[in-house]
Amino acid sequence: MRVHSSVIKKAAMEKLRDRGITVEEIAEIAYEMQKPFTPHLTMETCIESVQAVLNKREMQHALLVGIELDILAEKNLLSEPLLSLVRNDEGLFGCDETLALGSVLGYGSIAVTTFGYLDKYKTGIIKKLDTVKDGPVHTFTDDLVASIAAAASGRIAHRLRDEEERLSDLQNLDSTKQVG
Amino acid sequence: MRVHSSVIKKAAMEKLRDRGITVEEIAEIAYEMQKPFTPHLTMETCIESVQAVLNKREMQHALLVGIELDILAEKNLLSEPLLSLVRNDEGLFGCDETLALGSVLGYGSIAVTTFGYLDKYKTGIIKKLDTVKDGPVHTFTDDLVASIAAAASGRIAHRLRDEEERLSDLQNLDSTKQVG
Amino acid sequence: MRVHSSVIKKAAMEKLRDRGITVEEIAEIAYEMQKPFTPHLTMETCIESVQAVLNKREMQHALLVGIELDILAEKNLLSEPLLSLVRNDEGLFGCDETLALGSVLGYGSIAVTTFGYLDKYKTGIIKKLDTVKDGPVHTFTDDLVASIAAAASGRIAHRLRDEEERLSDLQNLDSTKQVG
Amino acid sequence: MRVHSSVIKKAAMEKLRDRGITVEEIAEIAYEMQKPFTPHLTMETCIESVQAVLNKREMQHALLVGIELDILAEKNLLSEPLLSLVRNDEGLFGCDETLALGSVLGYGSIAVTTFGYLDKYKTGIIKKLDTVKDGPVHTFTDDLVASIAAAASGRIAHRLRDEEERLSDLQNLDSTKQVG
Repeated sequence: MRVHSSVIKKAAMEKLRDRGITVEEIAEIAYEMQKPFTPHLTMETCIESVQAVLNKREMQHALLVGIELDILAEKNLLSEPLLSLVRNDEGLFGCDETLALGSVLGYGSIAVTTFGYLDKYKTGIIKKLDTVKDGPVHTFTDDLVASIAAAASGRIAHRLRDEEERLSDLQNLDSTKQVG
Repeated sequence: MRVHSSVIKKAAMEKLRDRGITVEEIAEIAYEMQKPFTPHLTMETCIESVQAVLNKREMQHALLVGIELDILAEKNLLSEPLLSLVRNDEGLFGCDETLALGSVLGYGSIAVTTFGYLDKYKTGIIKKLDTVKDGPVHTFTDDLVASIAAAASGRIAHRLRDEEERLSDLQNLDSTKQVG
Repeated sequence: MRVHSSVIKKAAMEKLRDRGITVEEIAEIAYEMQKPFTPHLTMETCIESVQAVLNKREMQHALLVGIELDILAEKNLLSEPLLSLVRNDEGLFGCDETLALGSVLGYGSIAVTTFGYLDKYKTGIIKKLDTVKDGPVHTFTDDLVASIAAAASGRIAHRLRDEEERLSDLQNLDSTKQVG
Repeated sequence: MRVHSSVIKKAAMEKLRDRGITVEEIAEIAYEMQKPFTPHLTMETCIESVQAVLNKREMQHALLVGIELDILAEKNLLSEPLLSLVRNDEGLFGCDETLALGSVLGYGSIAVTTFGYLDKYKTGIIKKLDTVKDGPVHTFTDDLVASIAAAASGRIAHRLRDEEERLSDLQNLDSTKQVG
């Protein structure tokens, strides 16, 4: 039986919430990343963009896979040596970034470079997830949160340009009318 | 404690074997894919290339993650709705291809396009893995096998060009000497 | 001065037309690729999907870059050895696939594997572009056309699933009402 | 006629030099990026790693394409609107990052995230290339330099781990002998 996408979306959002991650916290990272380039950016725009990213099927699937692996590692339910690789958040592991990158690539090059930046220079909720020791495992989850924030950032950059152009088109239309 | 890479390699190779997949079967796919472009290609070259690909850390990690998820799905040890997505090898799932693609991207564009081809037009062991119904789950494993064969194909193409150039350099050197 | 996106779109579409490529020809490839999985697929859906892909900024930019390089190679206006690499459509070149892949990655794994398939097993207009010898150079253009068709294919697969679910939701709603 | 890879390598290295970029300057960025994780890192290791990256065919091809486009833009030899997009180093252009990313993906996830970081937070020679105004065009070149440095960083991380393991293996062997 095929799973309905509404079931998948609900499950992905619940998993995020269960891990203590809110849409607002992810939106804050996107805000921080895009604010320098877009002075009039609001948190509302960022929240809307994070929600749009979370509406995508492949992002929901990645969240289900990644958070599942983190939870299984937490409960020692993965076989060795995978268990140790995930529990240690081993630097050369790579599968966590690969899974997260898959969902970022759809949002253009700004999203990709923002993801790289966030992975190196963790901020906000990503930092909070990353630094927890001997407690909950967030090896996949922190990269996925970075990928949501990065995708939202790329989306915002493209949307704001579209909006600027629409505004400037309207003004040109207006000045043409006045001249006429 | 950090896991030694020899432990990881051994575990990845054992997982492959446990799933009934041999290096030779993967090499046969690489052979089939590259034969049309390289008339003198031997199975030995293909086996050597598959082994080189399997020596890479990120490929071993991807195998550990992917086969683990397939086995957990087989044993109904994943939570829903992820369990159904993996058990059904759902066409829009995407995480299986994403994980596999990560290991292919390192081998150049021939590897990437070969991976895409193999994913569409499954041959050999990949077909065997893919078509099994109501039995073992190979959702991640078949894509990973395709990625190993594709990476080996890309590697072969680059290596053979290097060899051709070395041979032609030697012949030129030789003819220069004879002229001299 | 910033270039308006309407100027970029117009230029990209003109370049495609100048190279003898129509939206319909690209849509035919998407149709051929998705038909086996979606029996009710129409050419209208495929044309609409190709147009949506061509509306994306990064796809337009890739077309401007790729077609420019092909034309410059045709006119011998690239420096050596790049000129020979592009004119010969050298198999290990890779930059043509890289540029094209960038626009495909945004459309999910079906788009990526379809791109790989089309690059290996060229059909329709892609074949026509690829096989021309000693005439116009299409090294970048054929890969870009494959990427548009592949992206449209991925988009169709996701859209049709959404539609199926909407229909099934309506039917369920209906039967609930009737029961009530 | 096929171009010999030695010709391509020579041309790519000359182009880099002509644009005022040295292997040492790129190695300095790799050094800066990996030093925090590898206290004993030397500049020699970084230079060796940059040279290994520059020995790869696909990196050389990307350099030939990217620097050619920058030079053509500088000389106003690209058609509009591509010329303006490249001359302005337009933030949403994307093709420069796509071309550069293609060569990074082969070096694992550390290389990808380092590339993203360098693209956002430009340092050393990348900053120097990026900030020049109304002068030489480096739209593609700065991203390619970032990709070389990022690839070298990823390569260093993997190599050093291999070396650490070899050393620890030798010590274990040694202590086993002494016990014996």
